[in-house]
Amino acid sequence: MIPVTEPYLPPRGRLDYYLDRVYASHRLTNDGPLVRELTRRLEDYLGVTNLLLVANGTLAIQLALATLGVKRGRGLTTPFTFPATSSALSWQGVEPQYADIDPETLNLDPLAADHAVTADTRVILPVHTYGNPCDVERFRALANRIRVPLVYDASHAFGVQLNGQSLLNWGDAATLSLHATKLFHTAEGGGIVFRDSHLLEEARSMINFGLDNGSPVRIGINAKMSEMHAAMGLAVLEAIDEIIDYRMAIQDHYRKRLSGRIELPVFSADASANGAYMPVLCRNAVHRKRVQRHLLANGIESRAYFSPALGSLGLYTKEITGAGVEFADRILCLPIFFGLSTIQVDHICDLVCAIPPTQEPAL
Amino acid sequence: MIPVTEPYLPPRGRLDYYLDRVYASHRLTNDGPLVRELTRRLEDYLGVTNLLLVANGTLAIQLALATLGVKRGRGLTTPFTFPATSSALSWQGVEPQYADIDPETLNLDPLAADHAVTADTRVILPVHTYGNPCDVERFRALANRIRVPLVYDASHAFGVQLNGQSLLNWGDAATLSLHATKLFHTAEGGGIVFRDSHLLEEARSMINFGLDNGSPVRIGINAKMSEMHAAMGLAVLEAIDEIIDYRMAIQDHYRKRLSGRIELPVFSADASANGAYMPVLCRNAVHRKRVQRHLLANGIESRAYFSPALGSLGLYTKEITGAGVEFADRILCLPIFFGLSTIQVDHICDLVCAIPPTQEPAL
Repeated sequence: MIPVTEPYLPPRGRLDYYLDRVYASHRLTNDGPLVRELTRRLEDYLGVTNLLLVANGTLAIQLALATLGVKRGRGLTTPFTFPATSSALSWQGVEPQYADIDPETLNLDPLAADHAVTADTRVILPVHTYGNPCDVERFRALANRIRVPLVYDASHAFGVQLNGQSLLNWGDAATLSLHATKLFHTAEGGGIVFRDSHLLEEARSMINFGLDNGSPVRIGINAKMSEMHAAMGLAVLEAIDEIIDYRMAIQDHYRKRLSGRIELPVFSADASANGAYMPVLCRNAVHRKRVQRHLLANGIESRAYFSPALGSLGLYTKEITGAGVEFADRILCLPIFFGLSTIQVDHICDLVCAIPPTQEPAL
Repeated sequence: MIPVTEPYLPPRGRLDYYLDRVYASHRLTNDGPLVRELTRRLEDYLGVTNLLLVANGTLAIQLALATLGVKRGRGLTTPFTFPATSSALSWQGVEPQYADIDPETLNLDPLAADHAVTADTRVILPVHTYGNPCDVERFRALANRIRVPLVYDASHAFGVQLNGQSLLNWGDAATLSLHATKLFHTAEGGGIVFRDSHLLEEARSMINFGLDNGSPVRIGINAKMSEMHAAMGLAVLEAIDEIIDYRMAIQDHYRKRLSGRIELPVFSADASANGAYMPVLCRNAVHRKRVQRHLLANGIESRAYFSPALGSLGLYTKEITGAGVEFADRILCLPIFFGLSTIQVDHICDLVCAIPPTQEPAL
């Protein structure tokens, strides 16, 4: 079976080097030396400041919201995302409020978001889907106009630059997922880039029970990254250029082979890509189901990522949106990971192209 | 410097054995084989069923509350605890409501809790402080009478048996911290023992974004334990009897040396002890400050754990309680960890006893 993704495992000796340092320090967590080193190295690599590493990417969103004082009302977000984005809002007491996506970028549409604003809107939480940048200028203008914080879920956007600057530098905060399946990972992990260094310090206290110099000064929880996870991160980071180059080559190969044979999402020309995902757009839900089945029958996993559209679920709110629902029915992510060969990609492309689009109703 | 605690590091070869298995499985998280094995082994070792391992002990409390439907109103708890207990309530939208502690057990007093009940009380959350059991029969009766869930914060109570049965089997849920400084740990980690297997399954979905067979069916977050942390746990668990025996011997040695020279909390005769902490009771805040200073001047760390009493902070609520405040002023935890020698303990005891109690007002 070829999985849709596979975590990058650094050479064991590299991980051991960092684990030896954990053993030497006798520190296993609590803002230890490896977490600090990983933070510095990531800030340097990504071109950001005010980075806080945390236990996972969902807690990163929750903490960004809490630090920015968002704890009630509604949060404008996209229905075309992994449930973590909406769940993080809901868990923090903020009701997700869906606006439609732009059919070109598959990201939250700033105009639709603008139209969806209500007096209850307390935050805007767009997602840089597949690492493709949102319309950051228009979201900044909207957030300024309605005076609410702007938080980007940048879980897919590790290393992406927009007009030569890290995409993480847009928004009052931008959050990263460093989960095992992400192109850069710490097994489980997340990060928050804050625009404001004061918020960084607040969040640093908040992930450690609200303590400040050992005394509780605010409501906090535990969202600390351990030294073991930081060790994994440091070992993976040594290979990050190699990983991204590899994934980009695989993505390019896919796109060349599939171009004109199945619809491919358009990525921004102003941004660098990172090869995080390999999404294709089937004709409709029936076509997608047939492609998925055919791939599976040939030992290849694929994933309808993201489907269903969250606004159609009835779990969060019941706002059915047009393009969000349509693209949730059509989207399919093909295998992409470090180690996948171009021969395997050729085989996958042949299988995908063997299934003609259909106009039949859903099975 | 002798620290107040030091994480147990398993022999590197033992950790490597489990990390080799992580590498062989290519699974780094998401309910992987090591998390499953650690769950089974811990259930067996502790004598419990329905154990869910999670990312840390604070998330364990939050998830127990969420699973039991506690999401507003007030939660009856002890002011004499680490801020995590109260913070977990607050973060979930439940206001902590403090009742006084029993001066004998240092645990929440069931009678005081009973008197503190209001129409808003939605949960009872006592702590088995230092692993010393709460009055579980009376808390069960109170919870039944007022019809609210009973959740024990059992962060200190790893391995403790009450009348021959795991202390974790009391309550609708009991939560564990598996933080590096705990006698059994997974670097960062926590656990929840549910009375009801249906709640276990709900919580299992809730720690994985509310997914069930890949589809979101409830509001969830990410509170998964990684395979790397499970690897650490499995390696530590192999030594757990040795660790507890060692700590108990150190605790016994302390208690023999200090008996009659400084007040020692009384531990229940009906329960096994686990050597998790070495608390002593100074005469008052001045005495404690002098003891701490004298220890520090001699290279020994101690900790006023737990101080201040949370009800006196103004951070959560402002209920000042009698014994809770008094004991927060008097408590001091002395170093105890695997590897601390009896010669070091003798030295620490000599230093503690060299500082006479005083009646002077606080500095």
